Amino acid sequence: MPEIRKDPVTGRLVILSAERAQRPQPFALDRNPVDMGPCPFCAGNETMTPPEVFAYRADQKHSDRPGWTVRVVPNKYPAVVNDGNSSKYKDGIYEWMNGLGVHEVIIESPDHVENMAMLSERQFEQVLWAYRDRMLYLRLDKRWRYILLYKNQGTEAGATLPHVHSQLIALPLVPKEVADEMTGARGYFDSTGDCIYCELIRREIHDGRRIVAGNERFVVLCPYASRFSYEVWVLPRKHLSCFDTTPKDDLAELSRTLRQILIRLNRQLADPPFNYMIHSNPLGEAENGFYHWHMEIVPKLTQVAGFELGSGSYINPVVPEDAARLLREVAL
Amino acid sequence: MPEIRKDPVTGRLVILSAERAQRPQPFALDRNPVDMGPCPFCAGNETMTPPEVFAYRADQKHSDRPGWTVRVVPNKYPAVVNDGNSSKYKDGIYEWMNGLGVHEVIIESPDHVENMAMLSERQFEQVLWAYRDRMLYLRLDKRWRYILLYKNQGTEAGATLPHVHSQLIALPLVPKEVADEMTGARGYFDSTGDCIYCELIRREIHDGRRIVAGNERFVVLCPYASRFSYEVWVLPRKHLSCFDTTPKDDLAELSRTLRQILIRLNRQLADPPFNYMIHSNPLGEAENGFYHWHMEIVPKLTQVAGFELGSGSYINPVVPEDAARLLREVAL
Repeated sequence: MPEIRKDPVTGRLVILSAERAQRPQPFALDRNPVDMGPCPFCAGNETMTPPEVFAYRADQKHSDRPGWTVRVVPNKYPAVVNDGNSSKYKDGIYEWMNGLGVHEVIIESPDHVENMAMLSERQFEQVLWAYRDRMLYLRLDKRWRYILLYKNQGTEAGATLPHVHSQLIALPLVPKEVADEMTGARGYFDSTGDCIYCELIRREIHDGRRIVAGNERFVVLCPYASRFSYEVWVLPRKHLSCFDTTPKDDLAELSRTLRQILIRLNRQLADPPFNYMIHSNPLGEAENGFYHWHMEIVPKLTQVAGFELGSGSYINPVVPEDAARLLREVAL
Repeated sequence: MPEIRKDPVTGRLVILSAERAQRPQPFALDRNPVDMGPCPFCAGNETMTPPEVFAYRADQKHSDRPGWTVRVVPNKYPAVVNDGNSSKYKDGIYEWMNGLGVHEVIIESPDHVENMAMLSERQFEQVLWAYRDRMLYLRLDKRWRYILLYKNQGTEAGATLPHVHSQLIALPLVPKEVADEMTGARGYFDSTGDCIYCELIRREIHDGRRIVAGNERFVVLCPYASRFSYEVWVLPRKHLSCFDTTPKDDLAELSRTLRQILIRLNRQLADPPFNYMIHSNPLGEAENGFYHWHMEIVPKLTQVAGFELGSGSYINPVVPEDAARLLREVAL
């Protein structure tokens, strides 16, 4: 059973999961890559993964067989498991709980594609629909306080398998990064009555220097305090706290927007490894005026090193104004 | 001029430094490494670095020539610069200040050694003395609130040059990671009258499972909530807030302790890339009962990926009890 432990000084949480060490290549930096054999995510190899929990397929009666377009399976080496109680334990300065949660893999194509930008618009849309469907489903289990949807593409960005996929982790608590955003956004709302993300979008559109792309429904920008070179955020222009209540037409537009920004990053940075994360309202929280869901895309161009680990701050050699201009200028 | 910007939602700071982009290999993940030419850190190549600000050498009259054992130079591609004022600026939700500070490189050997553990005990001691001397010197400038000492060894850990070196950055503010430790430690002290690190050391020595090594003056352990596999902390057993007031005999013992733990990590993990950071009292703060300086050593075995970036939490596949046992069992 994995364990969630709390650092006694800072309160920072870590998930200790010995299950993860069973992966064929637990340490991505191993210098002699092992032969991974056939790809477990390709159509035809469905028996190589745990049984699917969800799929878009013409014939819903026959699971774990070819015929699907997007397929969701439990992670074979989960960081958290849906088993055990959610009691908290304490021994002096140390506190821990079971590593309770859900860890799933969203397989984004039946074909062996390694670069998400190569998927069709239609396929992007199905992927986003799968995100939405899984969030709506997992939301029904009142034990979960948060669902983090994220993607690692490329070994340097932490991917173990190259076939296009993303992951979700449902947790019995709100992760620190999101809790910090909630605190900041709530504080701004309390003093101004406004959503800080809505204000940010207005300012950025007015200013223009950090805008990469945009349409009626979404804005794509390099954030003012970008942690990483070519960091890009995608925000809905209309205020909405929860990703999974995004209307159908908006999701279709988001598919096009996301695909386009990945193509821009690929062309400007020669197919960089990257991560993206969706930040949405915690599950217990009602739709509200202060939190605004968004997507953060981070190309992996530099290493998190001693300064970042020791300070919690980042050194970014590319100012977001330059990054946005270069990404804007990419010929599509 | 670099700029320190604050994220309007979370308050997180980033240093935007276009100077850093001038490095021969600004993106460590570039797939075609450039030929770096002769090593600028080797004795005989002193003119390839900015003029030294400090060195241990037999003949102090002749700077920037061979004859030194440890040499400190300004970073050629600094993240922060000692120039300009420390005013803070604000425009609506955005806040920034000049990227004011000091960024130095501590060259740890005149010989082209790439693995710190290969240095002699005597050389380790000189390196730690150089850290201490630079901190005591930079402390005199009242603009600096914090000096972070850190090391990146190996490309995967963020090093641009392979010759053994560490770095220091003096900043006009206390970085978040340290501020969080201060808050936690102060809170514990206020409610118990005790230092939480002292309590942690007592508990760990009593428990024993996470202890890697120890002597009269220092304890080496894998922390209870280790973020990374084989993360190791070195703490002085006697309560002390500031690294740079460590007495001479203790520094000699720390040299031996640090060298030994690096040898253990090398033998157990086949010379892993790694980072270490020294966390000491902020410069404006007096020696106190609640903050306890320490060193954090992090082998770079996995990538910080989407989950970590999106949640601010970490998934660690090796429980610290196992890591400590394996490191303890290394034959020296």
